Amino acid sequence: MLDKKVKVGLMGMGTVGTGVLRLIEGHQADLLHQTGVQIEVVKILVQDPSKRRNFDVDSDLLTDDPYSLLQDPKIDVIVEVMGGIDQTKEYVLEALEHGKHVITANKDLMAVHGAELLQKAAGKGCDLFYEASVAGGIPILRALVEGFSSDRITKMMGIVNGTSNYILTKMSQEGQSYEKALKEAQELGYAEADPAADVGGLDAARKMSILSTLGFHVGMNLEEVNCQGITDVSLDDMKYGDRLGYTIKLIGIAKQDDELIEVSVQPTMIEKTHPLASVNGVFNAVYVYGEAVGETMFYGPGAGELPTANAVVSDLVTVVKNMKLGVNGRGMVAPYKEKKLKTEEEIWSKYFVRLIVNDESGVLAQITKSLATHHVSIEQVIQKPHHSENKAELIMVTHNSSKKSVEGVLKELEGLAAIEKIKSVYRVEGSE
Amino acid sequence: MLDKKVKVGLMGMGTVGTGVLRLIEGHQADLLHQTGVQIEVVKILVQDPSKRRNFDVDSDLLTDDPYSLLQDPKIDVIVEVMGGIDQTKEYVLEALEHGKHVITANKDLMAVHGAELLQKAAGKGCDLFYEASVAGGIPILRALVEGFSSDRITKMMGIVNGTSNYILTKMSQEGQSYEKALKEAQELGYAEADPAADVGGLDAARKMSILSTLGFHVGMNLEEVNCQGITDVSLDDMKYGDRLGYTIKLIGIAKQDDELIEVSVQPTMIEKTHPLASVNGVFNAVYVYGEAVGETMFYGPGAGELPTANAVVSDLVTVVKNMKLGVNGRGMVAPYKEKKLKTEEEIWSKYFVRLIVNDESGVLAQITKSLATHHVSIEQVIQKPHHSENKAELIMVTHNSSKKSVEGVLKELEGLAAIEKIKSVYRVEGSE
Repeated sequence: MLDKKVKVGLMGMGTVGTGVLRLIEGHQADLLHQTGVQIEVVKILVQDPSKRRNFDVDSDLLTDDPYSLLQDPKIDVIVEVMGGIDQTKEYVLEALEHGKHVITANKDLMAVHGAELLQKAAGKGCDLFYEASVAGGIPILRALVEGFSSDRITKMMGIVNGTSNYILTKMSQEGQSYEKALKEAQELGYAEADPAADVGGLDAARKMSILSTLGFHVGMNLEEVNCQGITDVSLDDMKYGDRLGYTIKLIGIAKQDDELIEVSVQPTMIEKTHPLASVNGVFNAVYVYGEAVGETMFYGPGAGELPTANAVVSDLVTVVKNMKLGVNGRGMVAPYKEKKLKTEEEIWSKYFVRLIVNDESGVLAQITKSLATHHVSIEQVIQKPHHSENKAELIMVTHNSSKKSVEGVLKELEGLAAIEKIKSVYRVEGSE
Repeated sequence: MLDKKVKVGLMGMGTVGTGVLRLIEGHQADLLHQTGVQIEVVKILVQDPSKRRNFDVDSDLLTDDPYSLLQDPKIDVIVEVMGGIDQTKEYVLEALEHGKHVITANKDLMAVHGAELLQKAAGKGCDLFYEASVAGGIPILRALVEGFSSDRITKMMGIVNGTSNYILTKMSQEGQSYEKALKEAQELGYAEADPAADVGGLDAARKMSILSTLGFHVGMNLEEVNCQGITDVSLDDMKYGDRLGYTIKLIGIAKQDDELIEVSVQPTMIEKTHPLASVNGVFNAVYVYGEAVGETMFYGPGAGELPTANAVVSDLVTVVKNMKLGVNGRGMVAPYKEKKLKTEEEIWSKYFVRLIVNDESGVLAQITKSLATHHVSIEQVIQKPHHSENKAELIMVTHNSSKKSVEGVLKELEGLAAIEKIKSVYRVEGSE
């Protein structure tokens, strides 16, 4: 039923690929003990086989022809750590078509084509695992699938983008400007030269799409994730938030109430006593609320060569065990529930709103009238003088209100002559 | 190979047992979807079958004869949530002897007899799972076995006793006395009438013994876990710790350096920036350091009816899947590595020491001489007047030193006339 060796084709030999090679080589004995078989990388896809590399590898293994891996009948498992979306999807489909199990660290791919690929894998009786795609160093997908198997997950909140969390941490703890913190992150290699996907929230949205597909058993599409980045977060917002007991974090939120689902990513005012508030720097964390279990949180490095490689190799161990058992293709189940998304009337939350208003009598009355019309009530207000003459700054935190109502209020306030500017609006989250 | 139903015998119908019944009943459809079989509780062991109960259950299922479960050939799985050690061990052995898989929430049992029971289970090809025994609501054992399968765990630190963490949190955040905080914990049902096992550290030691057996693949014995409780922690220690940047937590530490192992439980000064420092109230958390993954932390409720029951039912799902695959008895592996414990020369750490000394010249010189003799160097010192006349209080934090050296110093200081009292000594832990 199984050869004494499992043969792996590795697509990509960048940072993560090298880490995978390092771990497989360094842990041969442990891996053999756990699985009873030897795991061997037999072919490696690279762009330029003649290039000199940091990691010493037999040059005969290197190839620039993907199909020499995908169609090689000797190869049992494809490990895809090359990145890319559409072309890579074709490669993964080809691998599955040839009955190969696939492990990928590619969140972009899984966020966009995950449901289709999982269906294909199930149809072929192949495993398709992707633990490394979300919060590399945290075994969060495994925890969702297995640890919560008899529970119902109602809420997940994630700090799942290390770059933006690093920037927000620097701003909040050291009072650095957004620009300076971003530059520092780039110098340290935490942010790409083009940081758009990280600071714009897209990277986090991809991960939330993957988490909600798995946690809620529905096929989430990336475009259904409401997404806002951190580029407009200001030190002033942080200061006022701090005064009211909040820290600003880029939080991905996936909630399920009576089978109705909402998934979004946005800079969020989170209560300082909430465990996510003290997740700092490039660390990631996923907070999961289960009906039975209550509050749990999984914390760890979100990226990095070895954490990500470790997640890939853990998946590889599971694939090998499944091969021995002859039970591949049953692990990360394809979505089976019907998806019903919340409307804006059904998305409820507290909100933090900061306004610049004319410092004259009657302004607060106009604002409270508008709030009352839309059934939005206020939990806290701070008013203070603004540096421009005859202006005041007004900071409000609402009670739980629907997104629709709050947007109604904001639209109305924009039209009022006494209101100079809506400076910022944040979703507010805290303890259950 | 498997009937359409899996039949379960439940031993104990207290809080956790009732939770298990509730979850199995409430999640029938989900469980059926995941496993393809129906899970049915067919017999329940209770002390008094005639007693009225909160949970509605067919009275025909109840029995006070354990052997009617253990020897019933129709029963596939025994769920043990009755507690107890030696008698319960006999029951579990009997169940395994009859080829039944066993799930237990019993940390006392697993800490004392775990290695023997796991060996027996492996010999019989039976599963023996115990996720609920450590940090009920956190799937930590699963994470260790699967998430870190290709990594090498070098350090685990756990806040694994909710009662003592509740008491320390109240002391630290509200300045309550130990006695008042304990009383409040008892009133809220967080502490037993006899709190000795919780506040004395034994409960935490049991869990650290289970975690290190699993994480390091060695058979730890409970008596090898150095154990100190929180009964001597004072508000003064907290105040000085706070000033130096530390929070006091009851921390279980399991470390492995070059295959040499140390496991202990003690009140520990932990850097406020460490993720464990903000784990408050009855919550538990296990911080795991893996060579590849780096720092991770798993946070959640440590106890409670539904969190614990959820862990039990997750184990049950795994047992049922394994039955379908015919691969029981390979999950939680029996220890296979040789255990080498560190000597006191090999246990290294920073220490916090608080002394009451005579306020006279030459005292500090005597102390520093003693430190130098034992090669212990100082990272921070605070000296301040003591409320008694002519006395001073001296607080020192050492650099990394061996336990042996620090004990040598303390013994010498005790003999010095100028030293009135060694008020307290804490291990200090922080970021790697």
